[in-house]
Amino acid sequence: MNTTAREQYIVGVDLGGTNIVAGAMTADGSRHIAMRSIPTNSSVGDEAVAERIVGLVEGVILDTMGESEAARRDFIGIGIGAPGPLDRERGVVLVAPNLGWKDFPLRDRIQRRLNLPTTLDNDANCATFGEWWQGAARGGRNVVGLTIGTGIGGGLILNGALYHGSSDMAGEIGHTTIDLNGRHCKCGNYGCLEAYASAPAIATRAREVLVREEGESVIPSMVNGRLEDITAQIVYDAAKQGDQLAGEIVRDTARYLGAGVANLLNVFNPDIVVIAGGVTAAGDALFVPLRAEVRRRAFSPAVRAVKIVAGELPGTAGVVGAVASFKQQHLGGV
Amino acid sequence: MNTTAREQYIVGVDLGGTNIVAGAMTADGSRHIAMRSIPTNSSVGDEAVAERIVGLVEGVILDTMGESEAARRDFIGIGIGAPGPLDRERGVVLVAPNLGWKDFPLRDRIQRRLNLPTTLDNDANCATFGEWWQGAARGGRNVVGLTIGTGIGGGLILNGALYHGSSDMAGEIGHTTIDLNGRHCKCGNYGCLEAYASAPAIATRAREVLVREEGESVIPSMVNGRLEDITAQIVYDAAKQGDQLAGEIVRDTARYLGAGVANLLNVFNPDIVVIAGGVTAAGDALFVPLRAEVRRRAFSPAVRAVKIVAGELPGTAGVVGAVASFKQQHLGGV
Repeated sequence: MNTTAREQYIVGVDLGGTNIVAGAMTADGSRHIAMRSIPTNSSVGDEAVAERIVGLVEGVILDTMGESEAARRDFIGIGIGAPGPLDRERGVVLVAPNLGWKDFPLRDRIQRRLNLPTTLDNDANCATFGEWWQGAARGGRNVVGLTIGTGIGGGLILNGALYHGSSDMAGEIGHTTIDLNGRHCKCGNYGCLEAYASAPAIATRAREVLVREEGESVIPSMVNGRLEDITAQIVYDAAKQGDQLAGEIVRDTARYLGAGVANLLNVFNPDIVVIAGGVTAAGDALFVPLRAEVRRRAFSPAVRAVKIVAGELPGTAGVVGAVASFKQQHLGGV
Repeated sequence: MNTTAREQYIVGVDLGGTNIVAGAMTADGSRHIAMRSIPTNSSVGDEAVAERIVGLVEGVILDTMGESEAARRDFIGIGIGAPGPLDRERGVVLVAPNLGWKDFPLRDRIQRRLNLPTTLDNDANCATFGEWWQGAARGGRNVVGLTIGTGIGGGLILNGALYHGSSDMAGEIGHTTIDLNGRHCKCGNYGCLEAYASAPAIATRAREVLVREEGESVIPSMVNGRLEDITAQIVYDAAKQGDQLAGEIVRDTARYLGAGVANLLNVFNPDIVVIAGGVTAAGDALFVPLRAEVRRRAFSPAVRAVKIVAGELPGTAGVVGAVASFKQQHLGGV
């Protein structure tokens, strides 16, 4: 008789507007198996996207069984990270503009089709939780996470547990005002951090400067004069080539992010701030002036208490965090 | 033989730049006894102020013994709220500009002189905790507290416990940026909420408007033409008399506070925001436009989850909260 406990597995799913990523992990987090990604194709509608998730998870389970000694019964659950706002308790995505969803009961759809306990959590929360469990925020007690891409998502970890707030809305760091009379944000508010430092906002600011001043910059030539084609990536590439105007845009981005992060230091006094997403690709060109701006703005005891670091799990933080969120909700801890 | 457990008592102390307030409470919070206040007289120096606290607490203990059946041995401890930043674990006030203190081990001084277990916590944390335990924030799970007077202090209660952050610096809500290129704040940062909505900031804004436009306002006559004598109270009094310019200053204050509170809703998603301090004396004239501004700026699920209320314990929230903080630190909960 074999008395060794069989290893248990959890599947994590990161549902984005463009791609769905999923992978299996051993419940102790020691191994990642069968990471897979498919396009979301949100135009097919909520039910069909749910079916795509089901198919993806089934594939991950089969692959995991092929690559390890796992049997079907060794899978104990599925954690899903999805765009918010959502209602965790009911497992419902309330509104997801990028998916065109409203009040969709995603958790129960997946749970019923796959017959496995399933949890739902905010995607930005999951990304932060993933970095805390296995990435750059390991060992942190109070952690702020920012994921900067098309938007700016955020997550808060308090005393080692994800903090959700009173109606699962906590952590919307991208939508904190840093300039109350500033840029209009697509959330309806004015002067949100996201309206300055997201990837599209970086492109917009570059475009505005180039329209105003026929300055010295390689950017127009990189887009064949079509300024509407400017992306944050192009601004970054130009900055790396030494383009002064692009360098200024990157430093401005750091300044805006620095003001937003300083606010979080003064209110939340975290020991780690982890910043992930495409916008961090600028590396030191972003992080060095960002840390300087935070030092200028926040109280020094809060500055001394914190490390500001780049994410270490690009592409997988959301999946790892969805598994961690399943563990927190079903097993009572990570 | 009397088998009834004797009632236990805790003394709370609220140390401010102007006054020291202290009072005794039964440990269950059911009765407040012998609330007393003396001037701080900070010019006498840290050791002498500590001695004034000792004398005040001794008086409170004696009064309590006179007014109830308490004996000296029924007093189980002292909770002190003091201006921060401070180090709770070591019981040291690190810097308190209003008192002229630096690295003063207040907790141990009091503990040794009175031979009772003593705790130290931030005064704004205590005020919030007091409103949560016995005032306007009763029943809240996640609470943000603001105390607006000479400065803007803040406190966070998350999952029913005071949240201190990684180095006891959490809750500095007055020093969050709402306008990154805005007014210089005495903390060194630019555009802090405190630089717009504290009592002195309200007076400054009124003065600036009156200097610019020789407008229609009763304010100059209220200070005999000495604009430097304008206070927030005078602006409020003028607004109550129907003065349009003063009314505009109050509405601007609400707008600034609304932007700051909206940020807190999007990040912490609290169920209660409690605002206390002299600035709330304007009542509905402040709270109605403040709530409207928050609705305009914050995510609606976060707005729906929250009540924004005025404090109910003017003058005593700090003492009540200092007792609650003692209970959290020594008895493991409130």
